[in-house]
Amino acid sequence: MRSCGLSARVRRTVQDLQLFGSGDSLLVAVSGGADSTCLAHVLPDVAASFDARIVGLAHLNHQLRSAAAEDEAFCAALADRLGLPFFVDRADVAAEARQRRASIEDAGRTVRYAFLAAKAREAGATRVAVAHTLNDQAETVLLRLLRGAGPVGLAGIYPRSGLVIRPLIDVTRAEVEIYLQDTGLSWRDDDTNRDVTIPRNRVRHELLPWLRTHFGSGVDAVLARQAPLFREDAEHLDCQATEIARGLVLHTSGRTDVSVRGLVAQPPALARRILLTILREHAGERFVGFQHVEAVLALARGDETRGAIDLPGQRVERRGDTLTARSVPPDPSRAGRKRGKGV
Amino acid sequence: MRSCGLSARVRRTVQDLQLFGSGDSLLVAVSGGADSTCLAHVLPDVAASFDARIVGLAHLNHQLRSAAAEDEAFCAALADRLGLPFFVDRADVAAEARQRRASIEDAGRTVRYAFLAAKAREAGATRVAVAHTLNDQAETVLLRLLRGAGPVGLAGIYPRSGLVIRPLIDVTRAEVEIYLQDTGLSWRDDDTNRDVTIPRNRVRHELLPWLRTHFGSGVDAVLARQAPLFREDAEHLDCQATEIARGLVLHTSGRTDVSVRGLVAQPPALARRILLTILREHAGERFVGFQHVEAVLALARGDETRGAIDLPGQRVERRGDTLTARSVPPDPSRAGRKRGKGV
Repeated sequence: MRSCGLSARVRRTVQDLQLFGSGDSLLVAVSGGADSTCLAHVLPDVAASFDARIVGLAHLNHQLRSAAAEDEAFCAALADRLGLPFFVDRADVAAEARQRRASIEDAGRTVRYAFLAAKAREAGATRVAVAHTLNDQAETVLLRLLRGAGPVGLAGIYPRSGLVIRPLIDVTRAEVEIYLQDTGLSWRDDDTNRDVTIPRNRVRHELLPWLRTHFGSGVDAVLARQAPLFREDAEHLDCQATEIARGLVLHTSGRTDVSVRGLVAQPPALARRILLTILREHAGERFVGFQHVEAVLALARGDETRGAIDLPGQRVERRGDTLTARSVPPDPSRAGRKRGKGV
Repeated sequence: MRSCGLSARVRRTVQDLQLFGSGDSLLVAVSGGADSTCLAHVLPDVAASFDARIVGLAHLNHQLRSAAAEDEAFCAALADRLGLPFFVDRADVAAEARQRRASIEDAGRTVRYAFLAAKAREAGATRVAVAHTLNDQAETVLLRLLRGAGPVGLAGIYPRSGLVIRPLIDVTRAEVEIYLQDTGLSWRDDDTNRDVTIPRNRVRHELLPWLRTHFGSGVDAVLARQAPLFREDAEHLDCQATEIARGLVLHTSGRTDVSVRGLVAQPPALARRILLTILREHAGERFVGFQHVEAVLALARGDETRGAIDLPGQRVERRGDTLTARSVPPDPSRAGRKRGKGV
């Protein structure tokens, strides 16, 4: 009964959020964990009811834990059982993290989505389904707030972003496990998910259980269901900011000029977004947050008509009525420190 | 040294947020607690530096705890020591809560702000200063997120709202206590603030200390400093929604009509805000949240051109292209239940 409820829920999510439709070909990303094992089982029927089809399962072996080979074998067997083609690759995520001076989690994410995009092309897929749940959304909303990501961050995980769709975004992890148990399916536990020195795991295994006790068992849903509200605000404001930026911002190779007068005349909600977009373009893979935007806004609003600040991947200068952001190549003398910190 | 830092910070807050200026007369709300004792001591000099002045301290005796009379006496002595007029009144907040079917906290807040507005008139004050700190802001942001208040709620405590201003909003509670200790000032502790069955106290005494340990001691500031970002988004979107509502919404006595076609053509960020404003007008003192807005949006977007839903203080009906919200007087047969729940 409950399992049947899960399929119906996924169908409604696909419908309401228009995740895919007639003629779409879906590649399903699988790790071997409960969420993606559930997704791989549920999606074929749901897809068929929309006149779409599954073109295969895709698994990236991150080679990060001793059981990685068994995870891969589990996913291969899953594809075999479902009668679906299996796309697989191996990545040295630890090396990648060192090279990109990024955390294991960030490097893993970058490599994984690049792999999925490549396999989607190979398989002729029009969509890539990944298995984020309502609980992942709740964790993301909390984590982003705790990190100070502001309104942009609280939009959370997008149910659809480019090729990627997330059909389980309205389903809880508990419902996933009930579905798997009811259906007699097994999955693999990833013990790296238990390491609470990783902030997301701290939120998952300590903070959210505490919140469920003291603020109600529905707190995950309360958190997750705010993400679409933030997303709709963000989409509308981004759209307006893009429109206004056309008249204020001039992009040339490696630099961006902005009219100071035009910028400070905008409502702060839009001025901030215009600046965030510019700073992110010049930051490369580095993080740009609202504190950086704040510093540039202060430079623009200040009485001093000449000044400059250094920000991630760039230098921003004010000369009279013009703010200029210029990309700055990373300083190799600082690479060692960053590498040390990132991993 | 640190105390001097606190004054400077308050001065900057007043300046940046334009809380008051030359010629303003300030009434300071005091409870006897650390925050308001600090505010009463710091504000006279800050006010003088802006050519404003303090016209008195105001204290409402809530009669909720045994020490209430001593709190009142403490505040009277404080006014005396500062050479300022003292405005005082007593309220039976517990009775008020029963009568309004509200929680003690909600009733206390309503009664307190009504008292402050009355005393401001009496004292000829152009502003009423209250002592919310950066930590209160952090608690509010977290609590609102945990209650599902969405983007509107995360705007947090406004530094300026009508007559009320909050000059300590950028100062932490720890800085307040250091200031009072350095200056050799005493204050009164309110033991009702320790009751963790009240959600705010649970956040203050359990959740935030845990977050400081695991997410950094600056987590209060990280949370609090996002509130202005949400506020700026909210102000811009509210302004746009108000503008658009003029063409879509017709108010007549006790009812509001909205064009369905006009409403669903708007970006959801604006459509939601237009509806929220209407529903709040008809809700009286009752809570209207985004789940109510969601229900009305579903009615407007649905294929069914006739339908109705009951919401706090009102009934919303759709007849073809018109949505109508009508105030409905409270059902006396349900009063008992509500009263039981509210207190």
